[in-house]
Amino acid sequence: MLYAAIDLGGTKIAGALGYSDGTLVAQRTIPTEAEHGPEHVIARIVSLLREFGNSPAALGVGVPGLVDRSSGDVLFLPNLATQWRGVPLARSLHASLRIPVRVLNDARAATLGEFRFGHSAPNMLLYTLGTGIGGGVIIDGKLRLGPLGAAGELGHQVIEPDGPPCTCGSRGCLETLASGPALARAGSALLARPVTVAEMVGLPECRPLFTRAGQYLGIAAANMISALHPNLIVYGGGLSALGDLLLGPIESTIAERVRMFPLTGIRLECSALGDQAGLLGALALAALDLS
Amino acid sequence: MLYAAIDLGGTKIAGALGYSDGTLVAQRTIPTEAEHGPEHVIARIVSLLREFGNSPAALGVGVPGLVDRSSGDVLFLPNLATQWRGVPLARSLHASLRIPVRVLNDARAATLGEFRFGHSAPNMLLYTLGTGIGGGVIIDGKLRLGPLGAAGELGHQVIEPDGPPCTCGSRGCLETLASGPALARAGSALLARPVTVAEMVGLPECRPLFTRAGQYLGIAAANMISALHPNLIVYGGGLSALGDLLLGPIESTIAERVRMFPLTGIRLECSALGDQAGLLGALALAALDLS
Repeated sequence: MLYAAIDLGGTKIAGALGYSDGTLVAQRTIPTEAEHGPEHVIARIVSLLREFGNSPAALGVGVPGLVDRSSGDVLFLPNLATQWRGVPLARSLHASLRIPVRVLNDARAATLGEFRFGHSAPNMLLYTLGTGIGGGVIIDGKLRLGPLGAAGELGHQVIEPDGPPCTCGSRGCLETLASGPALARAGSALLARPVTVAEMVGLPECRPLFTRAGQYLGIAAANMISALHPNLIVYGGGLSALGDLLLGPIESTIAERVRMFPLTGIRLECSALGDQAGLLGALALAALDLS
Repeated sequence: MLYAAIDLGGTKIAGALGYSDGTLVAQRTIPTEAEHGPEHVIARIVSLLREFGNSPAALGVGVPGLVDRSSGDVLFLPNLATQWRGVPLARSLHASLRIPVRVLNDARAATLGEFRFGHSAPNMLLYTLGTGIGGGVIIDGKLRLGPLGAAGELGHQVIEPDGPPCTCGSRGCLETLASGPALARAGSALLARPVTVAEMVGLPECRPLFTRAGQYLGIAAANMISALHPNLIVYGGGLSALGDLLLGPIESTIAERVRMFPLTGIRLECSALGDQAGLLGALALAALDLS
């Protein structure tokens, strides 16, 4: 049985058809054109899926924001050009496609994808490190969502109580300290000129900024280790390509902060699925609820 | 069937006999005499239980530190006069009493007690606010322990990365910012003379210190809400007697930090069991593993 998957992003929509074992048979990416608003974007998703030809049994969708679990309505997508509030995404897609539609936060979808098809453990956390920092928590093999689908917001852990203001309304969230824009801002301030994260990687004077971001990520991970003792922590999203530049300080910070870390056997990994984690998670989501 | 419960503290040992529904039929408290070391304390526990006369079916013990889940060995009790490291507490008590013995961290025991006999929800957190800050996490009706019994250490969440050094080896843990000694230290610094928390309650100039402690507790709770979205957060331990002096700033801080808090329906409560939570949890622990 074929399933459809959509990973909706601020700039592009990735779509795929595949099987419940994670094998993709078709894949396509188109621009989101978010500036034309929700209805236009929904029509683009429908047309992308129709061009695959085949009729999937169900559709899973990952979106960069908060989703009402029961209705599939989008509550809040902060990173799209126009505001999405109360958009009945699942119902609209179902009305056009006539198949079951499940919608999930994209980082939670990536967590599900990693759990099913990548690095996996019964108790695991995933951080998506990019423009924002998303997250997901799996406990006893089950993705934690909470009644509003908002559990797993690991990027909105307050690390510096008086830190920079965050889009979520709080201050000093991990996202304000260790996301791509936070790194670029720190680099630009240091060098007194606009600089990208990619450029910063080649500049030795920027090294302490990566270390500091890793330390913040390490404190966030240490807190979750003390609270939950997961078996595995996975880092995905664009910044996870930085590898040891972040993982090094993450690991040494956890060791400093959690005395028994060497005894815990907790593994730290970069995502095995890379930028496909969200799409594969959406596929798992489509297959999950019908099996 | 009768069960026995022990709540081992730094200064006193509370013991009880009771039924699995939480009804106690006998209760007694004696000084710990911790300065004479683990063997002496274990002998005192045995003699306390023997004086009850009846033969309980099993014993549950809460201890202020970390316990190896499988063996019942005490790994680390930081707050007793002498160091307890690798003390085979469950085996020693079993050798004398000849009944099954289960040992648990005292804050985790209090969480179990509250869950079974006090304020209860399938997904809940409990903070014990006292000399230290302990914690427990219940997810889907199950106390989270992790392989080392160390999950649920909600007092060792780092809230101020560069904050005061903590007994756990980290810095800026919630325990260093909002425990009884932290409050007394802040009060003594403010007034330039030694002052107790009880005395501070009557001094208007100390009010901002309670507010600040509540704000730190609120940030810690906000982080756990974002990660896990529990239904209920319970505050126990001696400081929970401060009531709204702490709960007020806790609640307003959560509302500031978690935009959707009003939608979550999360309840904040002071323990329904007061200082009996740990003992009742030890009773639940004794009954739990035999049922």
